[in-house]
Amino acid sequence: MKQSLGAKTLLYPTPVLVVGTYFEDGRPNVMTAAWGGIACSRPPCVSVSLRAATATHGNIIARKAFTISLPNRAQAAAADYFGLVSGRKADKFAATRLTPARSELVDAPYVAEFPLIVECEVTAVHELGLHTQFIGEVKDVKIDGACLDAEGHVDVGKLDPLAFAPDTGAYFALGALIGPAYSIGKSFTTETSS
Amino acid sequence: MKQSLGAKTLLYPTPVLVVGTYFEDGRPNVMTAAWGGIACSRPPCVSVSLRAATATHGNIIARKAFTISLPNRAQAAAADYFGLVSGRKADKFAATRLTPARSELVDAPYVAEFPLIVECEVTAVHELGLHTQFIGEVKDVKIDGACLDAEGHVDVGKLDPLAFAPDTGAYFALGALIGPAYSIGKSFTTETSS
Repeated sequence: MKQSLGAKTLLYPTPVLVVGTYFEDGRPNVMTAAWGGIACSRPPCVSVSLRAATATHGNIIARKAFTISLPNRAQAAAADYFGLVSGRKADKFAATRLTPARSELVDAPYVAEFPLIVECEVTAVHELGLHTQFIGEVKDVKIDGACLDAEGHVDVGKLDPLAFAPDTGAYFALGALIGPAYSIGKSFTTETSS
Repeated sequence: MKQSLGAKTLLYPTPVLVVGTYFEDGRPNVMTAAWGGIACSRPPCVSVSLRAATATHGNIIARKAFTISLPNRAQAAAADYFGLVSGRKADKFAATRLTPARSELVDAPYVAEFPLIVECEVTAVHELGLHTQFIGEVKDVKIDGACLDAEGHVDVGKLDPLAFAPDTGAYFALGALIGPAYSIGKSFTTETSS
């Protein structure tokens, strides 16, 4: 029996997106956001939604660029910290002893130690209400070589990314492989044609 | 050492969104999408991106509404099937023996057996390229009572949602709880003030 929870932002899982930007004075900043995802395949685009009150929002408006650094399980506390304090008041890289790396493709820094980096140029800005949605065209994805399998594909087990659960507000690891996409559903195709 | 993978749509994890719509003749349809997420907190909005070639795209343009039904682990094959075939050619509810339920709030059906339902009214349409991004304002979220904890919050373990991994194209379960958000990062706050 279904129960109503009201008009809430509940989808599972959401990603944990560490958004890298430069302040006007060139100081690197990062903040963590969970409202976002992949938005388009061609050109490759991601979206991330931020409140106008955040320093990152202003930085993106000014520089038209951001990066997304994906943390792994061991980096969860640092990613959580990036969402707790404002870069206006703290040097988040210094506090976590992580390293800002300058993107050579877009005007934004990323977290050198995080395993997967998405470098984005802003192509659209959508005012949705409390949050502004930024569309970023992906200029490159960089990954630690140790997170690739023998065929050069992303090995999700080695990447070990975080998933965020809204409502209770918690980070989870990914678990068991359930099966390959565009494949496990074929059982129903057979069924209909029989 | 980071390796470049090129300009690709790689973020981990993405959700598995089963999008429910009505055809012009009132027939219910569902398709599975992984490009989307939460987009705004107030008003509560989600986004989902679809190719114009899909039946669901046309249905949303016509009816200005859609639902998202989140499958659990046991429903992964049905969700995969929903992404494999077109509703123009197959009755996907009949093939999977799942039940279309009519939303009382928006002009779209959902999958009655899936544990979490998000009912959305379209408030914006963004043409991004191959994909059109639909912004849906959440009118209600419905959940199976069995997926709630004692305090009435979503129990992620009981919900048992799917996560999609791009590149290799695979479904994963969620795994271990890593820790509470807005909490595990406080260790770094202490560090900076010491």
